[in-house]
Amino acid sequence: MIMTFAMGLTMNYAQHESVHHGHAHAHGERVKAKGMAAMNNSGKFAPYEFTRHEVGDNDILIEIMYSGICHSDIHHVYEDWKTEVYPLVPGHEIVGRVIQTGKNVTKFKVGDYAGVGCLVNSCRECRYCEANEEQYCETARVLTYGSSNVFHDGEMTQGGYADNIVVDEDFAISIPENADMEKVAPLLCAGITTYSPLLHVGLKSGDKVGVAGFGGLGHMAVQYAVAMGAEVTVFDITEDKRQFAFDMGVSNYVNVNTEELDEWRNTFNIIISTVPANYEVKAYVNMLAIDGNLIFVGLPANRDVPNIDIATLIFQGRRNLFGSQIGGIKETQEMLDYSVANNIYPMVEIIEPCRIEQAYKDVIDGKVHFRYVIDMSKL
Amino acid sequence: MIMTFAMGLTMNYAQHESVHHGHAHAHGERVKAKGMAAMNNSGKFAPYEFTRHEVGDNDILIEIMYSGICHSDIHHVYEDWKTEVYPLVPGHEIVGRVIQTGKNVTKFKVGDYAGVGCLVNSCRECRYCEANEEQYCETARVLTYGSSNVFHDGEMTQGGYADNIVVDEDFAISIPENADMEKVAPLLCAGITTYSPLLHVGLKSGDKVGVAGFGGLGHMAVQYAVAMGAEVTVFDITEDKRQFAFDMGVSNYVNVNTEELDEWRNTFNIIISTVPANYEVKAYVNMLAIDGNLIFVGLPANRDVPNIDIATLIFQGRRNLFGSQIGGIKETQEMLDYSVANNIYPMVEIIEPCRIEQAYKDVIDGKVHFRYVIDMSKL
Repeated sequence: MIMTFAMGLTMNYAQHESVHHGHAHAHGERVKAKGMAAMNNSGKFAPYEFTRHEVGDNDILIEIMYSGICHSDIHHVYEDWKTEVYPLVPGHEIVGRVIQTGKNVTKFKVGDYAGVGCLVNSCRECRYCEANEEQYCETARVLTYGSSNVFHDGEMTQGGYADNIVVDEDFAISIPENADMEKVAPLLCAGITTYSPLLHVGLKSGDKVGVAGFGGLGHMAVQYAVAMGAEVTVFDITEDKRQFAFDMGVSNYVNVNTEELDEWRNTFNIIISTVPANYEVKAYVNMLAIDGNLIFVGLPANRDVPNIDIATLIFQGRRNLFGSQIGGIKETQEMLDYSVANNIYPMVEIIEPCRIEQAYKDVIDGKVHFRYVIDMSKL
Repeated sequence: MIMTFAMGLTMNYAQHESVHHGHAHAHGERVKAKGMAAMNNSGKFAPYEFTRHEVGDNDILIEIMYSGICHSDIHHVYEDWKTEVYPLVPGHEIVGRVIQTGKNVTKFKVGDYAGVGCLVNSCRECRYCEANEEQYCETARVLTYGSSNVFHDGEMTQGGYADNIVVDEDFAISIPENADMEKVAPLLCAGITTYSPLLHVGLKSGDKVGVAGFGGLGHMAVQYAVAMGAEVTVFDITEDKRQFAFDMGVSNYVNVNTEELDEWRNTFNIIISTVPANYEVKAYVNMLAIDGNLIFVGLPANRDVPNIDIATLIFQGRRNLFGSQIGGIKETQEMLDYSVANNIYPMVEIIEPCRIEQAYKDVIDGKVHFRYVIDMSKL
C-alpha cells in the first residue's frame, strides 16, 4: 500500500531524490512519517509509513504530541460524505513541538509549540483569503487530510494521527508555553468551529444562547458562550451529561426527548446547533427571538435531506439561519489565545493509538466525554 | 349570510344600538359598508353589505378609492393556507380619503389621503411593538381581514375590497397629496414587504442584488434595489417580462428555465425571493457571496415542505437565510414617503370590482403586469 500511494508521486519524488542528500529531514528532502491509517472504509486502522513533502523555505516541521478525534474524521474514514483515497491518515486537531524550520520562517523557532487545524494552505489572493477567511478560499483551499494539495503537485494530504507534519508557517497556530498541551488539540477544530460563529453574530453579555447537542462541539460552545457572559441553555437527548453542563455554568439543560420545547418559543438570541444527526429544525427556529441567529455547525451523516421549510422562515420572520465552517487562520490564533488565557479547554480522554477503533465506536455511540485525544508519542 | 356574520356580534351591536342615534357614520354607531366578498372557497365573489365597528375616538373612517389584489388574497379566498371564515372581504392594499375622524385623532383630517396595509392593530406593549415591529406583535396582532379583532370583541375583520374602512389612526399611513393614487395601494403590501428586508440587511450602493420571481413583489424589489444603487439581476421563468426588467434598470435578466445558474455562484450580496411556488432553494444559496442574505418573502401554496438542507448551509458557509413579513407601521410610512418622493410605484392595471374573479385567474396564470388594482368607486 505504500507503493500504491507512492506511485502517484513518482516523478515528484524522483526530482527531489536527484538533488538532495538523503539525510532525514534535511532541507529539500521528503519527510518520512509514520501514523495510523484507515486502509479502506471498514473503520479498521493500521500502522502506516509514508512521506510528506519537504520542509520548504516557509514551512515548519512539527513533531506531533497530541491529535484529537473529530466526528468528521469518522465520517471520512467510513466514506459517509464522499469517496476517499486510502490509505487515509485522519486528524485535523494537531499540536506538537517545532523541530525544524525553513529559512524564511519567522513566526516559529525550533522548540516552540505549534498547532494545525483543518487547513494547510489556500490561494491567499481571493477576496476571502484577503479577508482572513481562508476557510472559504474560492480557488485553492487545501485541507489537512484527504485533500489534493495543488501547491505540491496534487499529492493527497495526510493528517495528524501521525508522528509529524509539515506545514507552511502561515497555516500553523502558535501555542503558548503555558497551554495545557493534553487538552489543546481539539481547540483547532471543535474550538474554532464554535468560537467563530458566536463572535460573528456579535454575542454579547446577557444574550440568551441555546446550544443544541452537547458533545465535542457543544461543550466548547457552552464554555465560550458562558465566558462571554451569555445565559446558556443546553438541548441534548441524554440525562447523563446534565451535571457536566451545570458544572460549566449553563442556566438550563433541556432533555429534548422528555421535555417540551414550546415554552422556549421566541426566546434565544443565538442557537448554535452541533447536532450531527437529522432533526426537526423548525423547533429550533421557533425558539429564536426576532433577529436571532440559528447557526449550523453539526453536519448529519445523511446529507442533502431538506429539513427546513420556507413557510416556517416567513411565519417566524427575521430569524436568521446560516452554517459555518471552522474559521480563518487569524481568528483561529485569536481563539487559541483567548482559550488559553481564559482556561477554556475541552474535557478530554487521552488514548493510545491502538485504541482509535474503539474510540470511534464510542463517539458514534455518544459515550465520549467529550473528546478523545490520541497521544502520538505512543505511536 | 349577513345574518350568520352578525350573529357573533349580537351583543356588541345591541350595546351600541342602545346608546346611539342611527345616523350614518355618527360617532359611536357601527359603520355600514359594502364590498365584494368570497362567500366560500370557490373563488366566486358577490356584492356584500356588512358593518364595521364604530369610528372610535382614535379611529378614522376612510372612503376607499383603490384596493390592490395581492397573491395572498387568492390563497386566503381559496383556503390554501388555513380554514377561513366566510363571507370574506379580502384586500390589504387600501388607499382612499379620510371622511371622518375620532375626537382624539391628530394625524389626519377630513380630506386627507390615507392608506391601510396588512395590519390594523397590535398590543402596543410587547418588545416587538415597542421596537416598531408591530408585524411581529407577540400577543394581539390584528390583520386587516380574516382576523379576529380582540380590540372589538373578537369580530372578524373585513378588508379593502369595499367602499370604506375604519382604522385606528396609528395603523393608518399618511399619503402625500402628490401621490399617484391609482398606483399607490400596492405599496402598502408589495412595497413594504420588499423595502423592509432590503433596508434591514443594509443594502448599499454597488451591492449585487438578485430578485427571484418578477411579479407583484419582485418588480417592487427591483425598483427599490435599483433606486438604492444596487446592480440588480432578475431570475424568472418567463421571457415576456425581460424588457420590463431592463426598463426598470436591472443589469441582468436570467430565465431560470433556459439559462445556467452555476455561473452566478458566490455572486450576490442579497437575493430576495418572491417566488410563490416550491423551487430548489439550494441553487439560490449557492449564488450568495459569503455573508450574503437570502430573503424569503414569497410563500408557496404548498407549505411545510422542507426545501433547504443543513449540509448546503454549512458547505456554503456564512450565507444567511431568513423570511420577512411586511414591516412595522413606522417603516411603512417611511417606505411610502420614499416611494412617492422617488416616483417608485407598481405597474398596475385598474379593474372594476366585477372583474375580480378573472383577475385572480390571471394572477394564478402569471398574466398580470404587475398588479391589479380595483377601482372601488365603481362598486
